[in-house]
Amino acid sequence: MQAIDQYQNLFISYLKKQSIVREPKNLYDPITYILSLGGKRMRPVLTLMAAEVFDADCVKALPAAMAVEVFHNFSLVHDDIMDAAPLRRGSITVHEKWDLNTGILSGDAMLILAYQYFEQYEPVVFMQLAQLFSKTALEVCEGQQWDVDFETRTDVTIAAYLKMIEYKTAVLVAAAMKMGAIVAGASEQNAVLIYEFGLNLGLAFQLQDDYLDAFGDPATFGKQVGGDIIENKKTYLYLKALEFSSDSVGRELQDWFASMPESNSEKINKVKEIFINSGASKATQEAIQEYTFKAFETLDKMNIGSDKKEILKTFGTNLMQRSV
Amino acid sequence: MQAIDQYQNLFISYLKKQSIVREPKNLYDPITYILSLGGKRMRPVLTLMAAEVFDADCVKALPAAMAVEVFHNFSLVHDDIMDAAPLRRGSITVHEKWDLNTGILSGDAMLILAYQYFEQYEPVVFMQLAQLFSKTALEVCEGQQWDVDFETRTDVTIAAYLKMIEYKTAVLVAAAMKMGAIVAGASEQNAVLIYEFGLNLGLAFQLQDDYLDAFGDPATFGKQVGGDIIENKKTYLYLKALEFSSDSVGRELQDWFASMPESNSEKINKVKEIFINSGASKATQEAIQEYTFKAFETLDKMNIGSDKKEILKTFGTNLMQRSV
Repeated sequence: MQAIDQYQNLFISYLKKQSIVREPKNLYDPITYILSLGGKRMRPVLTLMAAEVFDADCVKALPAAMAVEVFHNFSLVHDDIMDAAPLRRGSITVHEKWDLNTGILSGDAMLILAYQYFEQYEPVVFMQLAQLFSKTALEVCEGQQWDVDFETRTDVTIAAYLKMIEYKTAVLVAAAMKMGAIVAGASEQNAVLIYEFGLNLGLAFQLQDDYLDAFGDPATFGKQVGGDIIENKKTYLYLKALEFSSDSVGRELQDWFASMPESNSEKINKVKEIFINSGASKATQEAIQEYTFKAFETLDKMNIGSDKKEILKTFGTNLMQRSV
Repeated sequence: MQAIDQYQNLFISYLKKQSIVREPKNLYDPITYILSLGGKRMRPVLTLMAAEVFDADCVKALPAAMAVEVFHNFSLVHDDIMDAAPLRRGSITVHEKWDLNTGILSGDAMLILAYQYFEQYEPVVFMQLAQLFSKTALEVCEGQQWDVDFETRTDVTIAAYLKMIEYKTAVLVAAAMKMGAIVAGASEQNAVLIYEFGLNLGLAFQLQDDYLDAFGDPATFGKQVGGDIIENKKTYLYLKALEFSSDSVGRELQDWFASMPESNSEKINKVKEIFINSGASKATQEAIQEYTFKAFETLDKMNIGSDKKEILKTFGTNLMQRSV
């Protein structure tokens, strides 16, 4: 087994060789562009890692890992249109750099290209991968739709929020790992368990994202700290704060989330104060730990060597302690 | 073998049983809506017909036919956004009835749903269908991108235009038929030939569309006659008229296509006059015949009974003579 950065490097050198120089340029240039913007490459790394956990050469899992990364970037391009986001990873978004139509069409092409990467496997494996991929991709769309719906709803429950982030984020992390298992020919039981592991890790990852968005260190976080608060996003922090607060504090929080003040810094500070004093901040950290430990429990049931389990545990622990 | 309207009825009753009543409603309702708007259902009918031509029960081809129809409607939803079209088949387009984000996301979901219909076949057939589908879907995206690019280009050649309509329209007609052949387990040679047949028929179909848009009978055509002229679309008629015209008439045509007059009827009449007098109208009709006969020539090479060939010929002839 290799260290995380070795998987990253292996994947990135594979990705670079894929650069699609095809016509029409206006369709393929944005694809090369978005795929080159970087990011942690967490999902494809998990596919490679899972393949090795189940005793396959991780090189064999590169096309599947690529499918996952191309799909993830497809979802970013279309989501950025829906969120009217000007920036992605510090660079101009596709629909801003080109235009709306280019963003839609290049995204569509990426979704199809993702399926094509599975063609490098034989029929039975191809079908298993494509089937898992379609199910997952549809769930990601459903998660995105719930997210859009929640913006205008005031009755969002914690359970509904968790379902939304499970679909929008966690299922792809889970599927990325299961694809590694499929490519490696792991047993059905192990494939189910690694999916479960990834799902819980994905939930912890997204809750950590919510937490860092409010409480991350501006020096290392990368995105604007407080972005979710500015956009009045009903995150886990917000929903927990409402649940734990007295009526008057709850109203204060709702008032802040109904306001668009000229200066954001007061709003951010006041809301963070409520997050801390209500106990929502602590509850979020506990939930992150809870999902991470749930993931680790699944590991214990897995029929693999303890060295392999250690590696997956280290990855999970790092993810939980990350500041970026 | 059955008559066209029997295939249509079989497909429509299958389609109706598929109605996707799933959550979130805002994702699935637009899909049910667009699929219920009707249309000729030409592509799925061709899949069913091709399956029977190669001696399979056409019921076996229903999921593949459905994938083709769902994909076709996906492309309509996203194309309508790109064209800012208010109406589709006389009804409000998805992005107008709901909004832009719903149009993008429901379209994405349809592309994935199309792949899922292939899951009803065993792995080798699944892979053949999905592979042909991905290749075709990507070509349709490329065709759409060429179409977008052509809007702002003044150097579009007839060859480039034909390539564009081949990708945007004809490859899906071809693939629809080849899918019927794959489901039926036809020989590789027959599968290649039916694709060729469909490709030429698809080209004839699109040129006929161009022709009817200008010269169709307003009473039966369904769309606004002269729509392409109003939108200054560089169709086969326009490109041929430029090729055949003197410099001064060519300039006149270009001037009309650079203008947005208050009343469209004069523009439509003048442009149609140029289409007729230049010989472009006649050349278009000849090209339609040429592609139809090319399709028929491919039929002659096919290893199937003459009764089957007759049925495909009748379909092609009807398509060539249609006024809708």
